[in-house]
Amino acid sequence: MTATTLPSTDWDAFVTALDGIEVIRDAVQVAKLSRDYYTYSPILQTLLSDKVGDLVVRPVNEAEVLKVAKACVQFKVPLTIRGAGTGNYGQCVPLKGGVILDLTRMQTVKWVKPGLACVEPGVKLVNLDKQTREMGWEIRMAPSTYRTATVGGFIGGGSGGIGSITYGQLRDRGNLHAVRVVTMEDEPRVIELRGDDVQKVNHAYGTNGIITELEIPLGPAYPWAELIVTFPDFMTAARFGQVLGDSDGIIKKLICICASPISNYFAALRSSIPTDSHCALLMIAEPCLEPFGELVREFGGTICYQKSAQEASKGVAIAEFSWNHTTLHARSVDPTLTYLQTLFPYDPDLKLLEHMYHHFGDEVMMHLEFIRVSSCVVPAALQIVRFSTPERLQEIIRYHEDSGAFIANPHTYILEDGGRKTIDPVQLQFKEMVDPYGLLNPGKMKAWEQSH
Amino acid sequence: MTATTLPSTDWDAFVTALDGIEVIRDAVQVAKLSRDYYTYSPILQTLLSDKVGDLVVRPVNEAEVLKVAKACVQFKVPLTIRGAGTGNYGQCVPLKGGVILDLTRMQTVKWVKPGLACVEPGVKLVNLDKQTREMGWEIRMAPSTYRTATVGGFIGGGSGGIGSITYGQLRDRGNLHAVRVVTMEDEPRVIELRGDDVQKVNHAYGTNGIITELEIPLGPAYPWAELIVTFPDFMTAARFGQVLGDSDGIIKKLICICASPISNYFAALRSSIPTDSHCALLMIAEPCLEPFGELVREFGGTICYQKSAQEASKGVAIAEFSWNHTTLHARSVDPTLTYLQTLFPYDPDLKLLEHMYHHFGDEVMMHLEFIRVSSCVVPAALQIVRFSTPERLQEIIRYHEDSGAFIANPHTYILEDGGRKTIDPVQLQFKEMVDPYGLLNPGKMKAWEQSH
Repeated sequence: MTATTLPSTDWDAFVTALDGIEVIRDAVQVAKLSRDYYTYSPILQTLLSDKVGDLVVRPVNEAEVLKVAKACVQFKVPLTIRGAGTGNYGQCVPLKGGVILDLTRMQTVKWVKPGLACVEPGVKLVNLDKQTREMGWEIRMAPSTYRTATVGGFIGGGSGGIGSITYGQLRDRGNLHAVRVVTMEDEPRVIELRGDDVQKVNHAYGTNGIITELEIPLGPAYPWAELIVTFPDFMTAARFGQVLGDSDGIIKKLICICASPISNYFAALRSSIPTDSHCALLMIAEPCLEPFGELVREFGGTICYQKSAQEASKGVAIAEFSWNHTTLHARSVDPTLTYLQTLFPYDPDLKLLEHMYHHFGDEVMMHLEFIRVSSCVVPAALQIVRFSTPERLQEIIRYHEDSGAFIANPHTYILEDGGRKTIDPVQLQFKEMVDPYGLLNPGKMKAWEQSH
Repeated sequence: MTATTLPSTDWDAFVTALDGIEVIRDAVQVAKLSRDYYTYSPILQTLLSDKVGDLVVRPVNEAEVLKVAKACVQFKVPLTIRGAGTGNYGQCVPLKGGVILDLTRMQTVKWVKPGLACVEPGVKLVNLDKQTREMGWEIRMAPSTYRTATVGGFIGGGSGGIGSITYGQLRDRGNLHAVRVVTMEDEPRVIELRGDDVQKVNHAYGTNGIITELEIPLGPAYPWAELIVTFPDFMTAARFGQVLGDSDGIIKKLICICASPISNYFAALRSSIPTDSHCALLMIAEPCLEPFGELVREFGGTICYQKSAQEASKGVAIAEFSWNHTTLHARSVDPTLTYLQTLFPYDPDLKLLEHMYHHFGDEVMMHLEFIRVSSCVVPAALQIVRFSTPERLQEIIRYHEDSGAFIANPHTYILEDGGRKTIDPVQLQFKEMVDPYGLLNPGKMKAWEQSH
């Protein structure tokens, strides 16, 4: 275990200062709550497996968060925020020990209006969805972990997911309306950020403020049918995905394309998908199934699995085989597998994608998630990689980047080295103000580390 | 008046054969019902002003349509179908006299389900919208004439409109689910076309079948706020429109950009829009107004007009200054004006658009309508043109085409010479079957005229 940077901390005194807020000090529990799903990456596994917090604090409301912040500043101990810990890049792993702030007890849905909801960060996406659906609305996008993931964790560490084929990504203007943030100043306070100001803390891994409330937009709740369609070859499946994405008259929530042999890893779907299939996992608005069927026919696809929206509300959910869950299922069969995160440039002909598919063959198995980027539909890829060495992994990444594909490296815990690539001066400036002692999730924001 | 091709028709006997179906024979009424809004085009004005039918028949249901079809085949008289006659290319003007089939009495909404409606062709778009809104749904797209236009007329002669920024165009798969069509065979019958088969009659000007029922998809009914935003210069307004279109997190129904001096023609909005403004006419989902405001700020826009969805349900509707209504208002001030219909290629930098704006200056006033084409947002333009001669108009069209812009020529009544450009073998083949005598809207489908 790595020692905290402040071995001299009097943790008993710290806990006393918390004045009754729930604390977990049991080592097994603390270790468990110091982790996320970084194990997808053999690189991160090496870097993070010994990282652990000193204790976990579980506030139930903003007032308690303010008290925790005050105590952390007073004792000068690091504070790392976590939701359900479903991230994959060590976003909530404490690099320098200290306090783990577990926000999963802050579960209040403050209000739901047509098109908008206001929630505490610990609300589970699945629970919010249930509540908004009663009014005819749903969360616009969700990760494949939506049954366990929290809204705050998704905003702090996520980027998009199921629904991004319609609404783009979380960073796109309009996909996060407002947040309340607790600071780590000598006298912690609450700052409300609205409009573009939310970008100060959006996807910042909790490095520059503790989000205690979020206003997020909703989309109309369609009845989503779930389908799996197989195709004779991968590129036909990929082209089908592109054309479905481009079909503005067909409403969809998920276009996930898996090259053979990926679907062989889907144990719970083994009876539905023929072995070695190239397949598409899809969520289609029920009223659009008839024109959707025509598209399937045009591409010579075979529907091997179909559930109505009502049937889909029970049992296996197709979304749980998409996005990062695709990798999860593959790794549960073969733990040596890892993955990439790629964004291909806009090209309805999918030329670069086709090149990569043939170039790497079985070493980099193609898994596409079509999403909107500035209105145009492009394939994001979460390729499953047969890992050999870190050097080879880096070589694969470099080959993609040199060819014009964008890699959001999932093998780093550094904020700027993942999807962003550049320093975000706005987020750095905000950290300078709200976290003058650099206590929030230390070691993750390169911009700060390099300037302090 | 042009005589019918069959001057020998015994119209009294024809009317008797109709067996009580409503007929209009009054010359003034017949002349009125032989027209549409082709007067926007000085070219069509010359070609069509003397075209008139022999009589108008107004069936109330499909059974009556079958009788009319049978009588027309028996007497070998042309039949031209019309809805509200709000088209602009003479789609429903009878070139060879004969029967005008006015379908506006067929106004039954057969059913409305979540996401789908089934209607007779004479249902007004505005009335369907009212009914579906009670269930939380609305028609996906509508022309600026939606208060008078019919569903059948929109499908037969339209292409898209308000809502196309989200759902693309009527020709896109999924935007028309099914139609029932009455044939003009010796024994007229009803054919149901579903799925891709609807393309056999979609946007065919009623040349190859009489549509008697339509299944059309619906979209979720957002509360739409109406706004007008002014900008210091046209290209800033245009770029604002592109970025708003590309903002996947902001839901919108209309992005109409008018270069100065177009808005000076909007009499009913004169008190709201400063003279000589470059402005954007917008319909934005109310829950998205906050992030929308940030975008306006980024582009230095000034909101000069704003109505909530509830306020917008009364009085002036902003949509009635967009699409072809922009031209209508301009022409009501200056009847010498005409227009173009242009689709610019996908280019978020708007380079070709900028070139055209500067190249033609005040002769071709820029009016943009942003729409989705295969998922990407592009500006369609309905430029207002200061007409001088047919030759100059042709020169302007050619310059656009040579530069890579697509012109859907609104100065022709020939189906293929408008937006389509090529013969549609599927529509021709369907006409061969259902209209063997070539009685339906003769002279409009070039493919047929050239082969018979």
